[in-house]
Amino acid sequence: MNLKLNVVPFVSVDNMMKLVLTIGVERFLLELAECIEADFRRWESFDKTPRVASHSREGVIELMPTSDGEVYGFKYVNGHPKNTREGRQTVTAFGVLADVATGYPVLLTEMTILTALRTAATSAVAAKHLAPKGARAMAIIGNGAQAEFQALAFKALLGIDTLRLYDIDRSASAKCVRNLAGLGFSITVCNSIEGAMEGVQIVTTVTADKQNATILTDNMVGSGLHINAVGGDCPGKTELHADILKRSDIFVEYPPQTRIEGEIQQLPPDYPVNELWRVIAGHEPGRTGDRQITLFDSVGFAIEDFSALRYVKRQIEQTGLSDELDLLADPDEPRDLFGMLLRAAATPNAA
Amino acid sequence: MNLKLNVVPFVSVDNMMKLVLTIGVERFLLELAECIEADFRRWESFDKTPRVASHSREGVIELMPTSDGEVYGFKYVNGHPKNTREGRQTVTAFGVLADVATGYPVLLTEMTILTALRTAATSAVAAKHLAPKGARAMAIIGNGAQAEFQALAFKALLGIDTLRLYDIDRSASAKCVRNLAGLGFSITVCNSIEGAMEGVQIVTTVTADKQNATILTDNMVGSGLHINAVGGDCPGKTELHADILKRSDIFVEYPPQTRIEGEIQQLPPDYPVNELWRVIAGHEPGRTGDRQITLFDSVGFAIEDFSALRYVKRQIEQTGLSDELDLLADPDEPRDLFGMLLRAAATPNAA
Repeated sequence: MNLKLNVVPFVSVDNMMKLVLTIGVERFLLELAECIEADFRRWESFDKTPRVASHSREGVIELMPTSDGEVYGFKYVNGHPKNTREGRQTVTAFGVLADVATGYPVLLTEMTILTALRTAATSAVAAKHLAPKGARAMAIIGNGAQAEFQALAFKALLGIDTLRLYDIDRSASAKCVRNLAGLGFSITVCNSIEGAMEGVQIVTTVTADKQNATILTDNMVGSGLHINAVGGDCPGKTELHADILKRSDIFVEYPPQTRIEGEIQQLPPDYPVNELWRVIAGHEPGRTGDRQITLFDSVGFAIEDFSALRYVKRQIEQTGLSDELDLLADPDEPRDLFGMLLRAAATPNAA
Repeated sequence: MNLKLNVVPFVSVDNMMKLVLTIGVERFLLELAECIEADFRRWESFDKTPRVASHSREGVIELMPTSDGEVYGFKYVNGHPKNTREGRQTVTAFGVLADVATGYPVLLTEMTILTALRTAATSAVAAKHLAPKGARAMAIIGNGAQAEFQALAFKALLGIDTLRLYDIDRSASAKCVRNLAGLGFSITVCNSIEGAMEGVQIVTTVTADKQNATILTDNMVGSGLHINAVGGDCPGKTELHADILKRSDIFVEYPPQTRIEGEIQQLPPDYPVNELWRVIAGHEPGRTGDRQITLFDSVGFAIEDFSALRYVKRQIEQTGLSDELDLLADPDEPRDLFGMLLRAAATPNAA
């Protein structure tokens, strides 16, 4: 038990990398997926709200809070597609867990890497329930920062071992091939989206442009396919032609948010969609037939971050991979905040 | 210019105390008040939203974001009145500034101390426009963590030098007397609220119970008084009898938030109130007569935190009172987040 009330455990980028490597990427993804599934099963016990977004011409900054009544979590995350041109990440994030009973933060952590992991884990959880049984081959359209995490999550949870890659920039595909070498995949880099789709049971779209794009058109999508649509995740940013949506059974995280941010922003606001948590909880079926086209319209939801934050908190308690952050004022007498300041003036190392 | 893209400047509690002491509490309050006034004058250039609150039986956790289109800021803050019984603060807070153009955080700072300072500075800014001219004496009802900051802000901005203190717990008043000794006040500790109100031109109510209380009743409030109502700041938590509100000209920060959280939650939702920023900007008068009762129904608004965060950022750039936090993943090639992880595995100090 931590008796230093001023201290909040902090997981730096460096410690997050050490944590992921200590556990192993695939085991991390598997265990994180279990946490996400467990939290989706108790979906109704969470306070849910669409993320609080601040949009600008260049991108978006979002706060994503949720609480289960005992633990509160939120993530700060940005999305700025132009960032990569200046050597920055499109998406950076950090997150906080807090104790609902006291309001005190109990964890601050980088979440750029963690978001990549939780997004991939959530995709694989959805695919476990929605993809055709025995799927081995997946196309990945868009080979940026998220691609390898998706590949490894689908390998860990579904046994995907055949990848067909396409990116408008061939160097992105080459980077994926390099990074995934020796990790158990058979990989083909393709010259076209159509080529990448040949013979796959799953397609993951994860492109990054902030605009309505048409990565997949209707003619590319054969019966029985599972579409894992990850890239369309804010207003005005979609990846699929609307005709595909109309042929698919659509599964979403939190409908009020997905209707604003997901592929289904192209559809009428009352268009029927299925909630993924109801499938995971066993209230509704996932895939029901061989010819069914299933679509996971992923935008990312606060509960997934909550699961990831709690998982990381447990892991750093076991590994010690965190620093102590002097974040909270802790006067000897709680009402004496000003006195703490006065006493700091009296100590020799104060300025 | 900071070329280490992974690093965010962090102001610990220790460095915040050093910063406040280096600048001096009263000068800090004066300069912060100038920043708040400057931002209130350009009120219309901010994105405004009521805070995002997660209420529980014990308290509330809130996120307070705002942006002026160039800089984005938010504060995490809790309010848990029971905390003091366990040696914790009722209110703790931290805050973040980010660059709207990139979405990258540029400052993380403790805000427990900073919130106390900005709340007091905002109260004094309001009183500058609303209190009777030449006011010298102020009653402070509730002598907890906020009391000394209020006293010093009113001294710095208005020249208040006479304090009349009342708290249900006399040890709280004694703490105030001790902490304010030698700072230029004439202080009387009173046995009753009525006693504390004798001869004052301003009353500050800053009690902490999370319930509808009646700290001031109508008969206590004489003509010409300025009421600085700080403690009522969440649904179900008020300090003034509704009859006082009806005799007062009421000034608020952001009406959609104050109607939920402030004293005016006791009034009909269309009850007329004045916006403080319009007074500061010169669009509307503040106090207009000697017998007028003015009420600043303070709940705290995100723009005040934004002002405080920007002020602190400038000050740490001058004083160097910050640490470097490894918060943002920064791969050599932005799309190669996974490769960064792989390369960390290859470095000798990685686990």
